This record gives sequence, C-alpha cells and structure tokens, in this order.
Amino acid sequence: MKIAIVGAGLMGTALSWPLSDNHHEIHLVGTHLDGDIITSCKEHNYHPKLKRYLPERVKPYFIGEIESALKGVDFIVSGVNSLGVHWIGKILSPYLNEGQKIIAVTKGLEASADGKLRILPDVVRSELSPSMRDKVILAAIGGPCIAGELAGRRQSCVIFCSQNIEAADFLAKAFRTDYYHIWTSSNLLSLEISVGLKNAYALAVGMAKGTLEKEGGVDEAGALMYNLTAAIFAQGCTEISRVLKAVGGDPSFTYGLPGVGDLFVTSAGGRSVTLGKLLAKGHSFTEAREILKGETLEAAYIVQQMAKVLSAKRTNMAINKGELPLMEFLIDVIVKGKPANINLDLFF
Amino acid sequence: MKIAIVGAGLMGTALSWPLSDNHHEIHLVGTHLDGDIITSCKEHNYHPKLKRYLPERVKPYFIGEIESALKGVDFIVSGVNSLGVHWIGKILSPYLNEGQKIIAVTKGLEASADGKLRILPDVVRSELSPSMRDKVILAAIGGPCIAGELAGRRQSCVIFCSQNIEAADFLAKAFRTDYYHIWTSSNLLSLEISVGLKNAYALAVGMAKGTLEKEGGVDEAGALMYNLTAAIFAQGCTEISRVLKAVGGDPSFTYGLPGVGDLFVTSAGGRSVTLGKLLAKGHSFTEAREILKGETLEAAYIVQQMAKVLSAKRTNMAINKGELPLMEFLIDVIVKGKPANINLDLFF
Repeated sequence: MKIAIVGAGLMGTALSWPLSDNHHEIHLVGTHLDGDIITSCKEHNYHPKLKRYLPERVKPYFIGEIESALKGVDFIVSGVNSLGVHWIGKILSPYLNEGQKIIAVTKGLEASADGKLRILPDVVRSELSPSMRDKVILAAIGGPCIAGELAGRRQSCVIFCSQNIEAADFLAKAFRTDYYHIWTSSNLLSLEISVGLKNAYALAVGMAKGTLEKEGGVDEAGALMYNLTAAIFAQGCTEISRVLKAVGGDPSFTYGLPGVGDLFVTSAGGRSVTLGKLLAKGHSFTEAREILKGETLEAAYIVQQMAKVLSAKRTNMAINKGELPLMEFLIDVIVKGKPANINLDLFF
Repeated sequence: MKIAIVGAGLMGTALSWPLSDNHHEIHLVGTHLDGDIITSCKEHNYHPKLKRYLPERVKPYFIGEIESALKGVDFIVSGVNSLGVHWIGKILSPYLNEGQKIIAVTKGLEASADGKLRILPDVVRSELSPSMRDKVILAAIGGPCIAGELAGRRQSCVIFCSQNIEAADFLAKAFRTDYYHIWTSSNLLSLEISVGLKNAYALAVGMAKGTLEKEGGVDEAGALMYNLTAAIFAQGCTEISRVLKAVGGDPSFTYGLPGVGDLFVTSAGGRSVTLGKLLAKGHSFTEAREILKGETLEAAYIVQQMAKVLSAKRTNMAINKGELPLMEFLIDVIVKGKPANINLDLFF
C-alpha cells in the first residue's frame, strides 16, 4: 500500500518502521515546523530528533509538496501533537475522498467554547469541509509507545480504535509486526479519554519526583519517595476511571494499555515529568514555561482544557466537585498559579 | 495505647514510627528468625535492616518473651511475611481474648489442599483455637508502602481493611499521622487479592528489565524498553481486575492504592524484580533461587499457589483458561521450569 504520514515528529516518523517492514510505501510529510527535519531526511535520510536513519521505502516531503504526497494513498496517518489537530483537519480537508481512513497518534483532549469535553477525532472532523465530515473514517492509536523504542524495533503493545471496527482491523493489519503488537477496539471515546488525561497525570507523577529532589534526594537510610509517587500514580488512574464513567465510557480502559500502560511510560520521563519537577521545586507555571521555552507542553494544555470543562455551567461530564482532587490541584497550579503543595488527604 | 508488633522485619518495625509519633507504647517482638535484629535493638536501639535507630517508646522483645510482650495490649500487629502466616496464627492463639484486633502487613495468597484460593486473614484464622476463631477481629494493610520510606517519615498512602469497619477506623486512628495517610474499607477480599497478586506481577515487570539487560541495554539511538515494561505492567493490572471479578471482588481496587499503586512501588525494585531479571537473562528458576539463596521469594510462592488454584478440578475462582496469560506464563517459568519467553500476543 501507499501511505502518507503527515507530521514528521518523533511518533509520526517512528510509525514508518513497522510500515516499511511490511513493505508499504511511505510518504513522510513534515509540517511547517518540520522543515529542518525534512531537509535532513531528504539530504541524508537521517531524522535528527529520532537520531536514526530512516528505513527503506520512506519518501520525505515538505509541507508545500503535500498534494503530491497525498495522491492515491490508501490511508493517512496524522502525526501531529494535540496543538496541531485543528491545523491537520484544515490541511487535509481538500484532499480527502469518501471512505478515506485517517489514523492519528495524537493524544489529548479539548474543551469546546461552551465547556464541553471533546475528543480529538471530533475536533479534526469539525475542521473538515461539511460535505466530507461524515464520509471519512477516523481512527486513533493509544497505549504505551515511546517513539524511539518503536523505531528501534523494540517490543511495543498498542491499541487501534475506530468506531468502524473493520477499519481498525484493516489498519492494524497494515502496521502489525513481530515487535509492534496491536489490539483493536471500537471504543474510541474511552481510548481518547484515557490517553488524553495521562499526560496531565504524568505531570503530577513528575511532581513527586521533583519533591524528592527538593527535599535533598535519598535520606541517610536510603529512602526515596516511591510511596508518594505510587500514590499519585494510583490517584491518576482512579481519576481516569472516574472521568471514563462520567462521560459514559468503559472504566476498564483504565487498567489496560491506554490507562495504566500509557501513564506508566509517560511517567518514566519526558516533558510532562520535567514540567512537574520544576513546579514541585517551587517554580510557578509561568516560570516553568519560560524555562522550557520552545517545548510543547501538552500536559499543561490538557489541564487548561479540563479547567474549562470543570468550571462550565453546563457540561457533558457528570462529575461532582471533589471527585477529581488531583486534577483540581493541577488546575490550581497551572491555571490559577498556586504553589504546588498537594493535599494527599483529598485523594481516593 | 499499648501495641504489640510481632515480626521485627522491615515492614513490621517501620510501623513503629507512626505509632510512636502518636505517643503509643510499642512492644516489638522478633520471630525466631529475628534474633540478631532484637539483640541489636536491645543493645543499641538500632535496627540493622532498616538502618535506623528506633523511635521513642519502642521496647524490643525476643520471641521467648512474647507472653509478657502481649500482656494487656490494645491490639496486635502481625509483621510476618506470607510464609509466616500459619506460624503467627499458632503463636498468637493462646494469648488472644474475645474482640482482640490483629492487623497484618502480610501480602500474599494461598491455595488450600483442594486448590481453593484463600486470602491470608483466613489462613491466620484457621490456625487459631476453634473457640477463639470467630471472636477475634482481623484487619490488613495494603497499598504502596516501602518500609524504609515510612520509617523515614516520607509521605505514604495506604488502606486499612477489615470486615469490621469500626475496627478498621479504630486502627487507622491509632496510626494516622501527617505522613502516613490511611483510608479504610470493609472489602478485605478485594484488598488481599490485589496486594497478594502484585508481587507475582512485579516479578514479570522485572523480566522486562532483565530483557533489556540481556539485549545489551540502551541502543545506539538511546532506546530503552519502557514500552515492553509498561505493557507487562498493564497486563498485570488487567489480570488483577479479572481475578477480582472471578472471586466476586471489586475490580475498582485495581486502579487504586492496592492495585496499580502497590504494583508500581513493588516494580521499582526489590527481590521480586531481581528474580524476574535473573529469569529473563536465561537462568532457570532453580538457578535463580540458588543465586538468591537466603532471600524469601514471595513472588515465586504466589505463582506456585496460583498454579494450584488454576489447575484444581473444583475451584472458587470463576476464570477460564487464557484469561490470565501472564500468570500462566509465570507458572510455566516458575513451576514448570520453562524458559522465560513471553508471548505478548496472548495479552489483553
């Protein structure tokens, strides 16, 4: 098959490996932010962020070349992050056909203007031309998958979701290898909620790590702060399950790949954890954002969206005040600029 | 109050800190295996395994002095590990009064002779004299709590369970401090299943870490194996939820402190993880046990118990073959001596 990946960041590009190993032809299209990456790919076949040479059968394209890149493809991969979902909908819209499949790696959530919680496939769909809106098939990938490990052909387990389960199965077949293990589900809502929230809760786990650093690290008898970290991790999982219930999703997603799996991998490191550490060490969100200038802080973005949803007069999420104490704490720190002192007694 | 802790290992002893900070008098009784510890405590007030001086108001006792140690105590803490539960029932039995509260730190599970899954409070109860069996109140502590961190007064969140919720609340009040946060529940079955299984699944997480070491660690582009680790972690949580359902427990324990919380902390290190690493690096269980000689391998013990339950003709656990693929894999490795090659495609 011929497949276009739009967005040449870490995750979008990493999906080239299983596709290439399955002998597909891949058109890797950089966004307007990926110019340097595409230049490097064109000149040296080398992806500077992944620090790897691209596999066979990958052809890089600048964003200006998108029309020819999309021509005749069997399906499209959206490789943008959660801040790029409106853009990807707009940019793809003119080139779509009826029945076109689009599978997204994007993990996030968005609040509508009136405070409704929206999953990202719905956001993408809203940016398509009205005539095409209900004629394309949207799918999403969730689960614990660090891009650099997938590109290194290391064992990875994910879930492909689409309300059209045949499409999810079709896409899974295109990607499945002996290192990229894929399960399918039609419960797109539950997947998106789980993987969207995990960045925010990974930020909270990062705060536990930052608290340890702030208090001088290991103590005289060798004690770290795994107990605190684990409690925050567990509270994050508990809150994911509560939001799933509140939107009519399936709480069992919490203890599978999209919930605990994805949170586990995100809590191991990365920008969300780094941001959490800075906040725990006493920096305000404004200061932390300045320190991390140039990085996309998806975790903070999700907290901001949840703040809008939780403060909305009429929402689509049946949740009471106090049911998400960790998220409310994150909102206090990120949105209201309060200091990062967690009250654990509000948990569970 | 006056409180006896029987078992002067890491966790039993660590509970002295919150009790002491709440101004209780603590009688710390070593088992027959704790002779050196009690000698050190008596002579230098120093616990050699915790690497800390005991807090105020702790009086150490040898096992031979148990009668005077238990005299007039308000409640008893059982600090033994899962291999000591029969012993603790027998040793305490003569000294118990009607309404006596016993709270255990022990995490484990046991198969009865005919293959029924038993939680440890039931095992302890079965060792008491028939006249006292239904007259004592058993409680248990679960959740992510590394003993050295609790003794270092680092933030820890746990759950106290007893079918007698007033007793759980009474005990929680005795222990609760500004660093030891306690929730209570009457669902003892769900707590015991969750915290009992987590050692076995932490062993599996250790295997992922061992696989990384076996394959040479980080690759040329910096990739580790968090994806694999997270998938195994998520599968462990999924299987905990399935066992909970199968015994009529509450699957939501999976995503709270006793499930993901306890598994998270146990997966961070310790003997279960060390055993998993050795197995993944190619050692048979027999070899690994030899290398770890002298260590209590509770994780392996739980896998052996689950093997008996899953192969029993008539069991109390309504589960089908294939529903616990990770546990079945652990049984293959630990009980049947097979090599540690996980088939991820059997998961979820």
